[in-house]
Amino acid sequence: MEQRLDTSIIFQPVQPDLREVEKLLSEVSAVPSPQLSAMLSHIFRSGGKRLRPTITLLSGHLFHYQPDVIIPAAAAVEILHTATLVHDDVIDNSPRRRGQATINHLWGNDIAILLGDYLITAAEELAARTNNIKTPELLAQTIMAITRAEIEEDFNHFNLNKTREQYYRQINDKTAALFAAAVTAGAILGKASRDEIIRLQTYARNLGMAFQIMDDILDFIGTEEELGKPVGADLRQGTITLPVILFLEQHPGDDSLQNLCEQHNNVALLQAALQQVATSSAITECSHIAQDYCGRAKQALGTLPDGDYRQALTAITEIVMAH
Amino acid sequence: MEQRLDTSIIFQPVQPDLREVEKLLSEVSAVPSPQLSAMLSHIFRSGGKRLRPTITLLSGHLFHYQPDVIIPAAAAVEILHTATLVHDDVIDNSPRRRGQATINHLWGNDIAILLGDYLITAAEELAARTNNIKTPELLAQTIMAITRAEIEEDFNHFNLNKTREQYYRQINDKTAALFAAAVTAGAILGKASRDEIIRLQTYARNLGMAFQIMDDILDFIGTEEELGKPVGADLRQGTITLPVILFLEQHPGDDSLQNLCEQHNNVALLQAALQQVATSSAITECSHIAQDYCGRAKQALGTLPDGDYRQALTAITEIVMAH
Repeated sequence: MEQRLDTSIIFQPVQPDLREVEKLLSEVSAVPSPQLSAMLSHIFRSGGKRLRPTITLLSGHLFHYQPDVIIPAAAAVEILHTATLVHDDVIDNSPRRRGQATINHLWGNDIAILLGDYLITAAEELAARTNNIKTPELLAQTIMAITRAEIEEDFNHFNLNKTREQYYRQINDKTAALFAAAVTAGAILGKASRDEIIRLQTYARNLGMAFQIMDDILDFIGTEEELGKPVGADLRQGTITLPVILFLEQHPGDDSLQNLCEQHNNVALLQAALQQVATSSAITECSHIAQDYCGRAKQALGTLPDGDYRQALTAITEIVMAH
Repeated sequence: MEQRLDTSIIFQPVQPDLREVEKLLSEVSAVPSPQLSAMLSHIFRSGGKRLRPTITLLSGHLFHYQPDVIIPAAAAVEILHTATLVHDDVIDNSPRRRGQATINHLWGNDIAILLGDYLITAAEELAARTNNIKTPELLAQTIMAITRAEIEEDFNHFNLNKTREQYYRQINDKTAALFAAAVTAGAILGKASRDEIIRLQTYARNLGMAFQIMDDILDFIGTEEELGKPVGADLRQGTITLPVILFLEQHPGDDSLQNLCEQHNNVALLQAALQQVATSSAITECSHIAQDYCGRAKQALGTLPDGDYRQALTAITEIVMAH
């Protein structure tokens, strides 16, 4: 977990900006409807690291930083991320997230669906404050990519024939797209050149891939305390991630996963499959793949303006690996 | 039902534009993912009247009509409307809508949640094509208003103390907001003056109020065939609408609704309450109130440029009453 590393190198350079982002989130929560306001406060205080808005702020600072447009964009990125979590928790029927009760657990699925819709559009409204049509467009395209990937994933539940390529394409859309949107918003609003935007997008796409792979590893080898939710959630729902795909490549004759796919709700079979994958060399291999993505992410930053902001972006790749 | 009236006066003036809107909807459906594409085609072909995009087109035609921006805005308005229906059907657990199977019925709730998110953001992406930041902002604010109203409504289920004022505020946000967004998009993109925009918004707000009141009446006096869904759906879910509020004002001692509120799932009590309200004078009173809203809607159009487009907007108020 990142607590092991000193994260100040990442957040320190944008500390005052992050306080402005928090102020905006408080403003968004301060609606006249008391129930809605309570839900918004609950969700914004549920312990997110604010990694994605930090990336937007850092990207903006690399160029012509304009707080009046980059702060709303950063807040919009965080709200959009939050929206996806609220709907994911309904879909996954999750009672907890980051150790806190979820919206669906506290207020029920119907309210959580509506709140997620509210959050998506609150993000779009903030994005419009940047007075640049590319910002709401970018965020819209990001949710389109995420939901497209999640719909595809849903149709692939318990499909042990899922390939690495399918997995990579899915996590590129499901996770890396939002990291890419985060840097793009900062870079566009900072008036970066086309080449600089592409470099940052390459950074963010690779970072996002590494982030998701490490997350998928943790679902096998983490503890419930670290995760803030039960271990093995992916496999329980039938989501086939890289550790499973690599394990099956290495053990084509193994039937622990096959058995689970035939009896989805059998807890003993789930435990056996989790154990098999968690103790296999697939985990180390996944970690190497994530490391490669991080290497590519770092490399993409190479010729961008040096200084605290670039160093912070570089440090994020290390945080991801220490995840 | 509107079949009784000749609706050509409404749709005829924008027939070629509506064909362009349909083309855009087909483009939106033509995504590489076969499952997503099937769902999008299903939902866009589920027999909507295209009333809201028609309103956008008519509003645009009153001024400097620019198809390259007004067509995407009209399509975005229709997609946004569709998104709200997809999520409402999950929340209401509806198997059918307009006589067709719903997304949740065909593909399950998880997929319907994701598809609704996809549709909201597909609408925002189309709105960005207008190259006017006000369009995505307007649509975002509309969904914020709708979800805020629906969250409030959810907390008021089976609350027989709900007042007319609460009801009017809720339907203003839940229904009239999207009619207002539809005219506003057309008017702004048609470069209408501030005063003209306000007149059209007054028209649309009043039209939307009338539309929802007539819809709420139909839920009591319509037939399952007319509605494309079972009668009494609102009351079954505990949604207290104007007919109930007026009935209770007139019959403060009546206990048919009180009994239902104490035993939500009792079918005999539901039938009794439906019957009581449907045969009461509350229905006629509601209809008069809707008529008043329509009058105000027509009046607001008064000084706007005369011709086929304004006549079509006027005719919509008559369609609503013949609903």
